[in-house]
Amino acid sequence: MRLSRYFLPVLKENPAEAQIVSHRLMLRAGMIKQSAAGIYSWLPLGLKVLKNIENIVHEEQAKAGHLAMLMPTIQSADLWRESGRYDDYGEEMLRIKDRHGRDMLFTPTAEELITDIFRGHVTSYKDMPLTMYQIQWKFRDERRPRFGVMRGREFYMKDGYNFDLTKEDAMHAYNRHLVSYLRTYERMGLQAIPMRADSGPIGGDDTHEFLVLADTGESEVFYDSAVTDLTFGDRDINYDDKAQCQSIMEEFTTKYARTDETHDEALFAEVPQERRKVARGIEVGQIFYFGTKYSEAMGATVQDGDGKQVPVHMGSHGIGVSRLVGAIIEASHDDKGIIWPEGVTPFHCGIVNLKQGDAEADAACEDLYHHLTKAGLEPLYDDRNERAGGKFATMDLIGLPWRLTVGPRGLKNGVVELTCRKTGESEELTPQAAIAKVIAQYN
Amino acid sequence: MRLSRYFLPVLKENPAEAQIVSHRLMLRAGMIKQSAAGIYSWLPLGLKVLKNIENIVHEEQAKAGHLAMLMPTIQSADLWRESGRYDDYGEEMLRIKDRHGRDMLFTPTAEELITDIFRGHVTSYKDMPLTMYQIQWKFRDERRPRFGVMRGREFYMKDGYNFDLTKEDAMHAYNRHLVSYLRTYERMGLQAIPMRADSGPIGGDDTHEFLVLADTGESEVFYDSAVTDLTFGDRDINYDDKAQCQSIMEEFTTKYARTDETHDEALFAEVPQERRKVARGIEVGQIFYFGTKYSEAMGATVQDGDGKQVPVHMGSHGIGVSRLVGAIIEASHDDKGIIWPEGVTPFHCGIVNLKQGDAEADAACEDLYHHLTKAGLEPLYDDRNERAGGKFATMDLIGLPWRLTVGPRGLKNGVVELTCRKTGESEELTPQAAIAKVIAQYN
Repeated sequence: MRLSRYFLPVLKENPAEAQIVSHRLMLRAGMIKQSAAGIYSWLPLGLKVLKNIENIVHEEQAKAGHLAMLMPTIQSADLWRESGRYDDYGEEMLRIKDRHGRDMLFTPTAEELITDIFRGHVTSYKDMPLTMYQIQWKFRDERRPRFGVMRGREFYMKDGYNFDLTKEDAMHAYNRHLVSYLRTYERMGLQAIPMRADSGPIGGDDTHEFLVLADTGESEVFYDSAVTDLTFGDRDINYDDKAQCQSIMEEFTTKYARTDETHDEALFAEVPQERRKVARGIEVGQIFYFGTKYSEAMGATVQDGDGKQVPVHMGSHGIGVSRLVGAIIEASHDDKGIIWPEGVTPFHCGIVNLKQGDAEADAACEDLYHHLTKAGLEPLYDDRNERAGGKFATMDLIGLPWRLTVGPRGLKNGVVELTCRKTGESEELTPQAAIAKVIAQYN
Repeated sequence: MRLSRYFLPVLKENPAEAQIVSHRLMLRAGMIKQSAAGIYSWLPLGLKVLKNIENIVHEEQAKAGHLAMLMPTIQSADLWRESGRYDDYGEEMLRIKDRHGRDMLFTPTAEELITDIFRGHVTSYKDMPLTMYQIQWKFRDERRPRFGVMRGREFYMKDGYNFDLTKEDAMHAYNRHLVSYLRTYERMGLQAIPMRADSGPIGGDDTHEFLVLADTGESEVFYDSAVTDLTFGDRDINYDDKAQCQSIMEEFTTKYARTDETHDEALFAEVPQERRKVARGIEVGQIFYFGTKYSEAMGATVQDGDGKQVPVHMGSHGIGVSRLVGAIIEASHDDKGIIWPEGVTPFHCGIVNLKQGDAEADAACEDLYHHLTKAGLEPLYDDRNERAGGKFATMDLIGLPWRLTVGPRGLKNGVVELTCRKTGESEELTPQAAIAKVIAQYN
């Protein structure tokens, strides 16, 4: 992409309404624009990051054998009355009457509708296990929306639902989600720690929240610092292997790590003192096993191997896709701007032309652009007639991991400059070597 | 994908509520499920087709230089009061009050919000031309939703908006959209004819609708049959070339082709009688130039080259993404089911095992599955313990373009059967030759 043809409305000043750094930087980098309280448009740069995160979630869910589908945003109130949640949900639910006066709502989550789909089509244990998920816009009418996309009203969320014959099968689904989530967050450059949590309005006993440590987090968390040494890495996972999934679940959840909702001082005291940490965390996902809560209320039963009708065991599993954009920035920025992890960056590499209009510099930039594009990467070429300082400030603000700087002086010596956004380190390389090095970062 | 692990709830009976073939087949093939009047869940098979269509739209918009962004579904009523459309829109607009009693709405289109974004950030002619688009869920509270996704209330739509300094530039944007739309529909296996149309509540003088000829179409159309001989094909387009875009626009819009809204009997009479056709059509897209209607009402002005503030020239451009799923089926099916064009098919090839459990047949199917997957294709392998007739009926119903049939008898002779869904023709080939032939269809 050439910046002269892009829509990147960066702001020089810090917007007064933004209280936390991710909100500030997303506004300043031209990623989002508020259209109403807690409701945002995603401008081109922001949408690219959102889509990269969405794609990682889709890829990891497919690996785990979970099926993508999509439910509507506007649902009938009737289903929510069946489960009893229509009245429970309170003012956070956006309630709507259609032109015929029927009660509708904007879905905050979809346990009822997915259970309705299941009961309408699945009658036998032979059609299970089954896990379906969607990535869809949700609405929660927060009293005080704030912190940008971290606590908006309209938000983009992955919500998945498993249907199993037995509790044991459902716990395997739980473990499978835990494992796939660990891998998902690591691909985004995040360490998200599963912590024992409270189930809230979803219900159920077994639930873990995934939290990213950050000073601006909304939750107080208590953990054994040994959990932060765990990394998922390049493990080869067979998602059908119950023992393997269970053992990874145990590896990542046995050490003490809890939110304030479930914190237990006595247990925490057993952690060696030097490893006892109290911090703040941003919730970026949650998994639940809630058994037959919805299947009993809504009559989602199947015939088991003995011909008996039994209610199915269920769980649900969420990842805050739009919230993750903010969470990643909270975890990865400096005073100049965002520092995107390579897994989610909107462009793979910036190209800064120090002397736009200089025939040699222009040609060298076009050549870099061409080679990076040919290798399947997306560069962002700042081809505007701006001074170098402004171009550098923009690149630092929007946080691309790598920047190539091209100017007449370097070209005279046959080199361009390659700069790493994270370390700030630069090196002079031939254009060929610089291209090869950038390509190598993404393979 | 293995069918034993997929969620494909096919129906044997024709659903009584479905009046047209696409609605019937989408329900029977387990693509969608109605959750409320005119509101559908997209089951895994349906979502795959929807995403394929969405991806083609994204790819063609990117080629035309248009920028993807995303606006929220819930918008404040205030902006719509500025343009005067809040009251104009009538009962089709889904009006909502949030918890603080503020007037909100579910967006049926987004001229107001995109104009607000533009005026908030763009001040100079130097930042134009600019075209941004989104693919987002919309809601129109139809009095009588029907025909499945063809006339639903919640629907998925591409809507794009161009901002230009002059009418001439805006007409180039118009032509660019027309050209990119022609290419988009052809990639989906559709002939969509641009027809002079009426602008309705969007406003403006210049507008073309794209219509797919089908008996079940909602519009009566009048055209010179010579328009159906035009094909876009593999042309090399430079979207910056105004003359090239203009000449393609003229090629495709000069011959008589109009909907009943703009039909002119006198002009139609000038078409040679044997080429005068009256038929029905399904609207799958529309492009508009409406000049300064919104920019004047909402104060979207820029400084021109002489330092004068001028209102920008705008147009908007829509493709009915979810509606296209139905339109493609209306245009491509037979009495056994759907016939997907290769550009949008949910799976590239079916594999039917005639004798599940037979070691040799199972191994041969796995081998086909492996090779097709390795080549980047997605096969759907029917590995269930069902009789052959049921497997064939399912494959015909869901309409994959190619089917490989594997059984012990053929394997004894070293062959499998490759069947084309469209022609019904089968041939016996070695597994290697069959794989090569399927791969060749998609390259």
